Amino acid sequence: MTGKTIKVGIVGGTGYTGVELLRLLAQHPHSELRAITSRKEAGMAVAEMFPNLRGHVDLKFSEPAAAGLDKCDVVFFATPNGVAMQEARALVDAGVRIVDLAADFRIRDVAMWEHWYKMKHACPELVAEAVYALPEVNREQIRKARVIANPGCYPTAVQLGFLPLLEAGCVDLDHLIADAKSGVSGAGRKAETHILHAEASDNFKAYGVPGHRHHPEIAQGLARAAGRDVSLVFVPHLTPMIRGIHATLYAQLTKQVDLQALYEKRYAGEAFVDVMPAGSHPETRSVRGANHCRIAVHRPQGGNTVVVLSVIDNLVKGAAGQAVQNMNLMFGLDEDAGLKQVALLP
Amino acid sequence: MTGKTIKVGIVGGTGYTGVELLRLLAQHPHSELRAITSRKEAGMAVAEMFPNLRGHVDLKFSEPAAAGLDKCDVVFFATPNGVAMQEARALVDAGVRIVDLAADFRIRDVAMWEHWYKMKHACPELVAEAVYALPEVNREQIRKARVIANPGCYPTAVQLGFLPLLEAGCVDLDHLIADAKSGVSGAGRKAETHILHAEASDNFKAYGVPGHRHHPEIAQGLARAAGRDVSLVFVPHLTPMIRGIHATLYAQLTKQVDLQALYEKRYAGEAFVDVMPAGSHPETRSVRGANHCRIAVHRPQGGNTVVVLSVIDNLVKGAAGQAVQNMNLMFGLDEDAGLKQVALLP
Amino acid sequence: MTGKTIKVGIVGGTGYTGVELLRLLAQHPHSELRAITSRKEAGMAVAEMFPNLRGHVDLKFSEPAAAGLDKCDVVFFATPNGVAMQEARALVDAGVRIVDLAADFRIRDVAMWEHWYKMKHACPELVAEAVYALPEVNREQIRKARVIANPGCYPTAVQLGFLPLLEAGCVDLDHLIADAKSGVSGAGRKAETHILHAEASDNFKAYGVPGHRHHPEIAQGLARAAGRDVSLVFVPHLTPMIRGIHATLYAQLTKQVDLQALYEKRYAGEAFVDVMPAGSHPETRSVRGANHCRIAVHRPQGGNTVVVLSVIDNLVKGAAGQAVQNMNLMFGLDEDAGLKQVALLP
Amino acid sequence: MTGKTIKVGIVGGTGYTGVELLRLLAQHPHSELRAITSRKEAGMAVAEMFPNLRGHVDLKFSEPAAAGLDKCDVVFFATPNGVAMQEARALVDAGVRIVDLAADFRIRDVAMWEHWYKMKHACPELVAEAVYALPEVNREQIRKARVIANPGCYPTAVQLGFLPLLEAGCVDLDHLIADAKSGVSGAGRKAETHILHAEASDNFKAYGVPGHRHHPEIAQGLARAAGRDVSLVFVPHLTPMIRGIHATLYAQLTKQVDLQALYEKRYAGEAFVDVMPAGSHPETRSVRGANHCRIAVHRPQGGNTVVVLSVIDNLVKGAAGQAVQNMNLMFGLDEDAGLKQVALLP
Repeated sequence: MTGKTIKVGIVGGTGYTGVELLRLLAQHPHSELRAITSRKEAGMAVAEMFPNLRGHVDLKFSEPAAAGLDKCDVVFFATPNGVAMQEARALVDAGVRIVDLAADFRIRDVAMWEHWYKMKHACPELVAEAVYALPEVNREQIRKARVIANPGCYPTAVQLGFLPLLEAGCVDLDHLIADAKSGVSGAGRKAETHILHAEASDNFKAYGVPGHRHHPEIAQGLARAAGRDVSLVFVPHLTPMIRGIHATLYAQLTKQVDLQALYEKRYAGEAFVDVMPAGSHPETRSVRGANHCRIAVHRPQGGNTVVVLSVIDNLVKGAAGQAVQNMNLMFGLDEDAGLKQVALLP
Repeated sequence: MTGKTIKVGIVGGTGYTGVELLRLLAQHPHSELRAITSRKEAGMAVAEMFPNLRGHVDLKFSEPAAAGLDKCDVVFFATPNGVAMQEARALVDAGVRIVDLAADFRIRDVAMWEHWYKMKHACPELVAEAVYALPEVNREQIRKARVIANPGCYPTAVQLGFLPLLEAGCVDLDHLIADAKSGVSGAGRKAETHILHAEASDNFKAYGVPGHRHHPEIAQGLARAAGRDVSLVFVPHLTPMIRGIHATLYAQLTKQVDLQALYEKRYAGEAFVDVMPAGSHPETRSVRGANHCRIAVHRPQGGNTVVVLSVIDNLVKGAAGQAVQNMNLMFGLDEDAGLKQVALLP
Repeated sequence: MTGKTIKVGIVGGTGYTGVELLRLLAQHPHSELRAITSRKEAGMAVAEMFPNLRGHVDLKFSEPAAAGLDKCDVVFFATPNGVAMQEARALVDAGVRIVDLAADFRIRDVAMWEHWYKMKHACPELVAEAVYALPEVNREQIRKARVIANPGCYPTAVQLGFLPLLEAGCVDLDHLIADAKSGVSGAGRKAETHILHAEASDNFKAYGVPGHRHHPEIAQGLARAAGRDVSLVFVPHLTPMIRGIHATLYAQLTKQVDLQALYEKRYAGEAFVDVMPAGSHPETRSVRGANHCRIAVHRPQGGNTVVVLSVIDNLVKGAAGQAVQNMNLMFGLDEDAGLKQVALLP
Repeated sequence: MTGKTIKVGIVGGTGYTGVELLRLLAQHPHSELRAITSRKEAGMAVAEMFPNLRGHVDLKFSEPAAAGLDKCDVVFFATPNGVAMQEARALVDAGVRIVDLAADFRIRDVAMWEHWYKMKHACPELVAEAVYALPEVNREQIRKARVIANPGCYPTAVQLGFLPLLEAGCVDLDHLIADAKSGVSGAGRKAETHILHAEASDNFKAYGVPGHRHHPEIAQGLARAAGRDVSLVFVPHLTPMIRGIHATLYAQLTKQVDLQALYEKRYAGEAFVDVMPAGSHPETRSVRGANHCRIAVHRPQGGNTVVVLSVIDNLVKGAAGQAVQNMNLMFGLDEDAGLKQVALLP
């Protein structure tokens, strides 16, 4: 693969998934960052906003129109929901492949998407074409895709944790529970009071218990794995750390199975899913800055309830890292190219 | 009640429940702190170890033998498990009433206690006499008790959250789940690597999934409320904050009930249990330093799963505050004497 | 003093100094909270915004015009800079005494104030009358004041730390350095990106090195103590905690003096300034939630440089607590009424 | 340089500098990790203790005697002070080059070392030979060294910040002040109470004001740069973050100089020292996990006091990263081999 270089554009690089993409792509052996756009910050050096990139990224933010995105091989949308669907069509028609890190192409049922995201979808026909890109589920489709719906952070952690159980058909599909905890960067780089340090530090709370946008996305993925609809209770929480998601999953066994063997077999050969030894308790910091999902599976006191612990870095495997993993698949690169970072611990 | 003064002794005041007792008792209108013991630190001023107490507590740590505990009205044990059971007998015989903040008297089944705490119980007969002291459950027994088993932190948050459902007989007792998250002070003031700031900060993990000592304590309390044994999965997690427990509880409804009304009615008149408005998400910081438990009850998307959110400060309602509340009951003081602090927010 | 009740109004109670005033006044034995205003949140229950106040404060935010502030004994302005100066005149004329927690009345040189705060002053004549209210400096003037300029957070910590040296005339007034560190609540409850948890947590930085608004305020106070102008370098830093200021002060000795004795004598009898034993290192958490300033004074390796360590809670002694202390003085109450809280540690 | 492989051993890999060395060496293109020793943990897989290394490091901790360290090209000592000096002689005699991350070889004045470290030095003759290895100061000596004294964390940040001023002879050498702030990992992975999360989080304090072991190390380096002894006041502080040092340095100008140009010229061509634009405030997170030192230089209000802000990651440029940088120099590799990581932000 040596020698191949992918021309990359990023739309909307001023948020956390944007800077994380820049961090990963700056170290990627086969990508060349051509443009990064921001209407608001056009002209400002990227490294001025994100000083960790000083010496690594020389680009300035540019106006979308002047960015030459149509000459890129791939364009990442690190934008709020509702932006990619406006701009994808033209780029796809120009032969550019698209990876949307937001939610525009994740939900196949457009009416349901419109209900949860409270806007009209601008290009439903690309939803139909788009590939929901969890490499551990549909690697082959990703290789050929023109439009990639990069999964959400909670959905990645929860689906990877539940999949072996659902594919094996060994749990009660009507009583699935996902109790998930996210670091504050999951809320984005937005000037909002509730995620101020003085509010969110030294504090823990649930939110969105009546309903959260990631619910339909998770349910769609679980249904696909199970072959039928499932009933899921999903409770997200905000935990005072910067990065990381810890999903604690509960399911009722309907038949006997060697859980440890089931998980190890399911993810054998996966570079980015690590089934930990029996009895383990994965920590979010063990994946801080890395593209791994680490999973442990428990059956407390030999009862019928399976407890799965699944951790990811929400900005890496839950966003930018998985986007790069998908890019690698799309362009025939090694799947782990540019993703070999060891997690930062402590 | 004006004028009444309770003579108080504390055994083992160098841990977090000890300093928290001192903070509360220093502000208590009817208590007089007579002695605080520590073999290891005897002779050191308490305020030297805990500088927040400078100007509030003049005592020095004293040798247990020289402390005159037998002349106190009440002695609090803020000691590791296994200490109070050694010393309670003599004090009770001397007419002193005992509040044990550790676990020695919490489990009525002595064999089960010995299994979980891995030691032989030194005075089973006091276990039989002791009152498991959750005031919202058995206030009258507490008033008369000679030996108080002060509930654990997780058990307080989980029981207060589940009780209305169990007493009302409206949930499936075989599928209760308590997903609980604790700040790091819950692990005590012990020199252990895993709770160092550099390990526990910016990190989230479950622990003790195969089994945790608070499980039998919670199960005992829930069984009492339900009138039969229950099946409970309890998963504790460590979250990077100093104080606070957030319990997220899951139960399956077996009959229709107005959940909000049920909770409000159950805790009407309780000074320290706050049922929040429907749709609320209580935050741990809303009880930081205060003796309150705040609870919200949800039924996501109208399904059959009840989700209860219950928060306490593990060192206050989960330990020292509840101990003072129990002392108030034992000595006929106002139940909230010395416990009117407003939580520190932000 | 029993029986006396002060009618209190608060203008602008949605920020951190506002909620902190509410926390303290809710526990104050001689104050009655009459109104708290917020144009933006009028009609909302205060306890809905600040759930720690549930059960303690029943008020709703009200429109300023409808609040009846002119019938209060004292009105606190917990507003942004530039508000109190607009409204103080009318209230003072109505016989109401004013405590401004913002900067409108702190700087006697109005031109300098206008330079630093970038607006025209609306009532310079009240600046002339106002008392800069550091009780440890000018307690008697405070008792009689109609308009109180409540000192800033950095200025409180820095002045209390430097005063004994300057009053004793024993240091070089041309080379004073104040290296100060503040928790993030010092930046206020404002929706700004740089104080998000994901930005400000696990990070440390200086800011405002070329110039900070607290510089002229500190310099004015130091000049008053020294009897001449001083030259001060002031470098503030943001540290990842919620509350607390730690000022590390450097001065060059010009004559020999027993520093420990100097400080102990200067603050003997002060309820809220604690000179710690020689060799101490005060921690910010030792004043978390309390109105104390704790100070230690060092002379490393016997050299000529004095190092003073001074800590306060920026929201208490650095804002709302000092405001209540000033109210107590103004109305002849015990100076520590409502301010006896023990700091929350851990 | 392609193809060259350095055989590496690590003595004492269970602390934070050890795991950080492993993180960096696991990604290094020209190093081969042969052995990592720990008497206490011999036999345990390294990745069991440090789960971030799962999939990256397969080694187990081994007994020192069985580790074959004498067959390595280089051995890093990531041990407590006093260990390397016992074992260096034999390894050097066997032709192995040594990098000590502890303090054994840092102070050329052995009597002074023995005073500060409170033990007798075991091999003073290697102190004489050892190179104090700050590459930006003495790169050529490092290339040829057999024994490397890797600088301490505070000394790295403080020296890099002060050097241009001292080398230019433009400041008063009798009044240097270094006010330094460190994250908690700087205290090591030791089971000590004062660095528990519940103690060190949401708190700020100075420590070691009367004297700190890094003082003589810094003073030695500054004297070398200045050509004479200097007088330095050094005040370290503990700040509630995991990684990072922020040094705020104060010096009095004795002649006029273009400070920005001075710093830019001094560090032109240095891969790991980044002089930021005039007016900048470097943040510790901008170097989190990276080997950079970022520096800004200020002259507040045009006065005579220079304020230098210097940040590093204490575990990277302040320890393991600098050790790898030194290894690269010693073996003729690219100086930045294995050190191209972009800092993790947010």
